[in-house]
Amino acid sequence: MSDIHDRLIAFTRGVPPAESFPVAELEECYAAALDRDAAGVLQYGHQPGYLPLREYLAEEYSAHISEVMVSNGSLQIQDLLAGCFVRPGMTVIVEQPSYDRSIAVFRRHGARVVGVPLEADGLDVGRLEELLKRDGAPAFLYVIPDFQNPTGITMSLEKRQRVLELADRYGFLILEDVPYRKLRYRGEQLPMLRELDPTHVIMLSSYSKLISPGMRVGFAVGGGDIIADLVQLAEDSYLAPVLPTQATVYEFEQRGLLASRVEQLLALYRPRLAAAVAACRKHLPEAKFAPPDGGFFVGLTLPADVHLAGLAERARRVGLALTPGHEFFADADVDAPGVSHGDRFVRLPFCALQSDEIEEGVRRLAKSVRS
Amino acid sequence: MSDIHDRLIAFTRGVPPAESFPVAELEECYAAALDRDAAGVLQYGHQPGYLPLREYLAEEYSAHISEVMVSNGSLQIQDLLAGCFVRPGMTVIVEQPSYDRSIAVFRRHGARVVGVPLEADGLDVGRLEELLKRDGAPAFLYVIPDFQNPTGITMSLEKRQRVLELADRYGFLILEDVPYRKLRYRGEQLPMLRELDPTHVIMLSSYSKLISPGMRVGFAVGGGDIIADLVQLAEDSYLAPVLPTQATVYEFEQRGLLASRVEQLLALYRPRLAAAVAACRKHLPEAKFAPPDGGFFVGLTLPADVHLAGLAERARRVGLALTPGHEFFADADVDAPGVSHGDRFVRLPFCALQSDEIEEGVRRLAKSVRS
Repeated sequence: MSDIHDRLIAFTRGVPPAESFPVAELEECYAAALDRDAAGVLQYGHQPGYLPLREYLAEEYSAHISEVMVSNGSLQIQDLLAGCFVRPGMTVIVEQPSYDRSIAVFRRHGARVVGVPLEADGLDVGRLEELLKRDGAPAFLYVIPDFQNPTGITMSLEKRQRVLELADRYGFLILEDVPYRKLRYRGEQLPMLRELDPTHVIMLSSYSKLISPGMRVGFAVGGGDIIADLVQLAEDSYLAPVLPTQATVYEFEQRGLLASRVEQLLALYRPRLAAAVAACRKHLPEAKFAPPDGGFFVGLTLPADVHLAGLAERARRVGLALTPGHEFFADADVDAPGVSHGDRFVRLPFCALQSDEIEEGVRRLAKSVRS
Repeated sequence: MSDIHDRLIAFTRGVPPAESFPVAELEECYAAALDRDAAGVLQYGHQPGYLPLREYLAEEYSAHISEVMVSNGSLQIQDLLAGCFVRPGMTVIVEQPSYDRSIAVFRRHGARVVGVPLEADGLDVGRLEELLKRDGAPAFLYVIPDFQNPTGITMSLEKRQRVLELADRYGFLILEDVPYRKLRYRGEQLPMLRELDPTHVIMLSSYSKLISPGMRVGFAVGGGDIIADLVQLAEDSYLAPVLPTQATVYEFEQRGLLASRVEQLLALYRPRLAAAVAACRKHLPEAKFAPPDGGFFVGLTLPADVHLAGLAERARRVGLALTPGHEFFADADVDAPGVSHGDRFVRLPFCALQSDEIEEGVRRLAKSVRS
């Protein structure tokens, strides 16, 4: 391997490390899926997703089969949800910062996307309530309660309950996106919003962070009426989802391979998180972040006095690739002329990097903001 | 197998017969694809489609790589095309009858879908020109020149040239959808519109009819600017397409398996087409149809004096499943009170049925329209 000082270090997207993919198992599972059900897997059909996988997920999430949809990745389902629920001018509320691609999807459907600031224990519920009082119910609220993208923050139990109370009082839908949930490196799981009260919740998740992103197997669990509307729109858009990959995931689950796979990933990612946290404390002690309990990201807020102008370009020149922080911010709140407060935010996806690369990347970041 | 008289015969959707799927080859190709490029196939990326497959298609269709996109089935690409080109109130022109799912996709994007009647050698170009003179250029014209869905009709060379001249004169885009093109049972291929003049043409095709629909591998070949817009919208909608199935198709093509596969399908389907044509002539001699040279469908127009009211329900009671003909008609032109001329149209997808089933199905149809 090349010397670390010659390597570009990418803190851009939240990707799993390619060397972690369970190639041999996937080859076996695919062959088994075709041997078992070629007539189903290779044919048109299964518009709501591959039936055996939906049955498996219904069992796992204590849902009725009519409440489960599997699609070509969970962003696709967010696009369908926006197609069903958003009309131009409607409001969608998101955590601030939030997943940049979701913000873009909601906007493309004409939503006015409003950000509610995140605190170390989840979104500012008081601020959410003010917004609801002022503007009424949004088309939906989009939250990532576990190890949030891009901050790594986990929503406290109390806030989960408050958000559900508000959804009940004001009558709005919550999109609960939990793709990182099974990747908890420490502490105890909190119940999902959907487990506390499924009435107003559509849960979204995916196998992208657990098995493979390229397979694009994402799913939704929610009210049967909403799932039926999503499936109808899906069939009108792409006829049926890609089935061989869904059937492969079903075989993977059916054989009980996921639990040991998750254990492997936890063992791989836990020291990388520790390296990221240690590097931030060492090289950027004045930056603020909430050390995450799981997931893919540490989200840093840089202090006000650092050099932000052209940061992404300057970082690139010292071998560091960053996603500009403002892309995660729905609101263009301005702290200083020409600098939105999103520009002070840096997402550090640590899973696909070795610990020494993480340390070196944070060192380059510190150098860039002080130059 | 059960007695044919007890069997439901389905002339509903254009599906390939499940027993034709090349299961062993697909298992080998999938394993080979992962062995060769797991890091690419299982990861995020290849937003315009799996690069080696795009390179293969670029070579086959004499296009630049930037002119090729592969997506999760070609209906998905039609949805993206409508998202890029259709704004509410715009006109989309289709052959009449046409593919029902395409009509539905264009309408969902707000298009006013106008049908131009089909003749035995393709759409009525005089009528198309009248429409263009009256209304100006549409958002696009959608045509299926080879073995059209749902009629089986092939557009003549002269009409291909006339349509291209009109596209040039009035300045509109043509969506040329050719999923059946390689399934020609007799006669010589005519050049694709794209081969005659690529300027205004986006060609769409798919492996659904050649390898497997469940894999959902469809593609577009067209101008680089349009493909770039489609890919951007695709990335904003589903991030990246499902890659393992695209990589499997690439292996299948790369090994030269498609040519012999097509030969097998021609040998399987040719007698089924002959059975369909013979059955129509025997049981419904007064019905009009153009015997197709390829593809999946015979499209019958029933004579005016038959019993049409509740045909689908009555056919179902004698063990025959039909798709109501008016679903293929964009315009609700009315021939008689309560009966659109679409109701006189019956699509007969013959590929997934044995010859004796086809004969029996047409017999039941004849019985139903005379009862």
